[in-house]
Amino acid sequence: MSAQRSVRLRVFSLNCWGIRYLSRSCAQRYEMIAELLDREQHDIALLQEVWSEKDYLFLKRTLATSHPFTHYFRSGVIGSGLAVFSKHRIQDALLYRYSLNGYPYMIHHGDWFGGKAVGLVILSVCGMRANVYVTHLHAEYCRAEDTYLPHRTVQAWELINFIRHTSADADLVILGGDLNMHPQDLGTRLLRAHTGLRDSYAETDTFDGCEDGITLIADNPFTKKKDLLPFEKGIRIDYILIKGSNSVCVKCESMSTTKGAVPDKPFPYSDHESLTSQLLLLQQSDRMDGVGERHTDTGTPLRELVDVVSEARCVVKEGFRQTERLQLMAMCLLAVGLAFLLLPVTTLPWLYPHSHCVVSYSFLGLLGALGLAMVLSGALLYVLFTTQLKALRGTEASMKLATANLQEREGGCLEEGEEDEGGRVPSSPPHTARGEARSQPTPLGYED
Amino acid sequence: MSAQRSVRLRVFSLNCWGIRYLSRSCAQRYEMIAELLDREQHDIALLQEVWSEKDYLFLKRTLATSHPFTHYFRSGVIGSGLAVFSKHRIQDALLYRYSLNGYPYMIHHGDWFGGKAVGLVILSVCGMRANVYVTHLHAEYCRAEDTYLPHRTVQAWELINFIRHTSADADLVILGGDLNMHPQDLGTRLLRAHTGLRDSYAETDTFDGCEDGITLIADNPFTKKKDLLPFEKGIRIDYILIKGSNSVCVKCESMSTTKGAVPDKPFPYSDHESLTSQLLLLQQSDRMDGVGERHTDTGTPLRELVDVVSEARCVVKEGFRQTERLQLMAMCLLAVGLAFLLLPVTTLPWLYPHSHCVVSYSFLGLLGALGLAMVLSGALLYVLFTTQLKALRGTEASMKLATANLQEREGGCLEEGEEDEGGRVPSSPPHTARGEARSQPTPLGYED
Repeated sequence: MSAQRSVRLRVFSLNCWGIRYLSRSCAQRYEMIAELLDREQHDIALLQEVWSEKDYLFLKRTLATSHPFTHYFRSGVIGSGLAVFSKHRIQDALLYRYSLNGYPYMIHHGDWFGGKAVGLVILSVCGMRANVYVTHLHAEYCRAEDTYLPHRTVQAWELINFIRHTSADADLVILGGDLNMHPQDLGTRLLRAHTGLRDSYAETDTFDGCEDGITLIADNPFTKKKDLLPFEKGIRIDYILIKGSNSVCVKCESMSTTKGAVPDKPFPYSDHESLTSQLLLLQQSDRMDGVGERHTDTGTPLRELVDVVSEARCVVKEGFRQTERLQLMAMCLLAVGLAFLLLPVTTLPWLYPHSHCVVSYSFLGLLGALGLAMVLSGALLYVLFTTQLKALRGTEASMKLATANLQEREGGCLEEGEEDEGGRVPSSPPHTARGEARSQPTPLGYED
Repeated sequence: MSAQRSVRLRVFSLNCWGIRYLSRSCAQRYEMIAELLDREQHDIALLQEVWSEKDYLFLKRTLATSHPFTHYFRSGVIGSGLAVFSKHRIQDALLYRYSLNGYPYMIHHGDWFGGKAVGLVILSVCGMRANVYVTHLHAEYCRAEDTYLPHRTVQAWELINFIRHTSADADLVILGGDLNMHPQDLGTRLLRAHTGLRDSYAETDTFDGCEDGITLIADNPFTKKKDLLPFEKGIRIDYILIKGSNSVCVKCESMSTTKGAVPDKPFPYSDHESLTSQLLLLQQSDRMDGVGERHTDTGTPLRELVDVVSEARCVVKEGFRQTERLQLMAMCLLAVGLAFLLLPVTTLPWLYPHSHCVVSYSFLGLLGALGLAMVLSGALLYVLFTTQLKALRGTEASMKLATANLQEREGGCLEEGEEDEGGRVPSSPPHTARGEARSQPTPLGYED
């Protein structure tokens, strides 16, 4: 029998809502957050929306003693907003930028400028290798008509694959952050099923916090009540997810969230509530197969894995069609802009004899300027949507490959008539494969 | 003593130069490439510059029997150009897009539109897990004044980290592609030192191909001789790199390249030469530490690892300064554009009484259009360079963290007065750390 060693690890996660000059009481709240982290001495603090590097540097200086190891992930125009503060040495770090992240012209939403990503830091915790991930997915804004759902689904899929491919030799996996997804939303189910990560809220022994673990609460003065509807009390979109390995068992002993108001302070830490999970790590002194959890097996039945990917593929396909429409509109804008731009050139000889016609000249000048703006915008939007179509198509192909391999594991066959990337067409005999492949129907018409 | 099993694996790599309507004899060359692959029956073919999905689909159909498993990596506006054709089942795939990849306004170079990336496919080769990477880094264009060196160095660093973090449970690692770097260039040295990947050309038992293994040769009618200068015969920038694990030993038995002209064909396959490596895999039936190669140890002395990262950091810092200057120029363009745009508005009341002044109106109209174009371009360039500064800063921080951890492993100390991301300031006692951290000098002035 191998010896067991137990270690306790306290993990903290908070979306700081740190938009300088826009988020209310930003500087004071950062001071409160620094005070909280310094006092509570969590092992690992995972922060999101630390948009300004100056605020990160303030936290870094203030927490130099309590959390001497830090990493800040830079991405996009403003930054990824992701920061890690740790008591344990950060041995390595890697950032993965999501391929889709909203639209630059939705300036009032601003997600595009944030360069959303997942950050990985590798920590050595009492000799164990902990892969700690922090992320922040695209916001929802309108649940009834969620135009960002395909983008968030692509992000969730990329997050899953990044975690799966980078955590093979981890003793312990922790993911913290603002997923902007409810516990039963597609992306959350996909994430849990395909990584084997478990929700620490769902399995904690004791919990002290908001009802149902909600992290965006109606009682918080910074949240807009109408954004939460139809969920009157609030929603749960921030998580700490955990997973062990065949050398370490992990369980959540206790969990807590802040509850809006902070004693002796005029306002809460953020518009989100913070989460703290106390984890118990049971380390086997010898790595043994069958003991603890296995990385390759997520514990979800294969059929369920296939079903949830199929559901996600439908969302991505719908996103593809939606983006194709947007690309067409960009092309129309470009064409109209070109017409506006050519109009002054073609009508100038006609106007020239009547050179007193000042109004027409000004009008044509305006038309030209408008045309130029439309051509530039149309071209840029065309480039943007083409890039997004590539990303959506790439994700769909990746999901198709995953489905084919799951079905292969299940011992089943591919759906009739469906050709997979990375897999053969099982129903086609070799001598007909070349000719027939051309006529295979593909769901999005990618075949030429 | 554990039993040994040997497996032979033939790997092929080619930059196809597949720009539809621009690359000479593109369609005919794809037919030749398909014929070659079908005839040679390599286990794995790694292709770059397959820019058009239609050409990929042509290859996929033609090679349906010889290489039934394929994956195409989609990225950027045009695509990543990366494709894998395999005899062995592709179990999984992941794409990592490089954060820096040239400039969109350098349309004649076009790299930015390609969305350069590294693609990973995971293959099952006779029960062994092979992580196969394919990539294509930013081109050099002018060796004497290589403005893309920081971008290529960032790409090399991201490639290294992606391979390191995703290959932990691989029995075998293969990287093929056009690195656009000579064997002794900084990026190539960085790659070999930090991943432990070995150049199959450098260690092959037998070689049949161009002199010195060059892959861009002067004798190829598609290459421009002046682009190769001062290397009269040509340069070696395409590679197949290999690495085993503690369960599999890998060595290159033989290697070959094409030599420009193809017998019975009017032209070569591409402007690059193709590479073929025959690998011998010696598989231990039991995983044993100390047997084969170890993933964590790249075999390079720690001092050398630190030195090569320091060299790369200098290049990235220079890139940062260069991009800061570009950002300043974008701001100037924006300011001048704003002035041009405001000029018509401010001078209009003055011009109004002289409404016969047609020339002035037209002139002001033109000025307004020019101003608008300048404002839009300036704003977009500002966004572009800000994003690039974030990526450069992120890479520099990642290199700093790597250096600190290498020095920690070496048992040494950080350089005097240098504060590391992810590591503490060793010379500062805890009680002074907060106050002193503010005044720490940082090389790029990131402190507020």
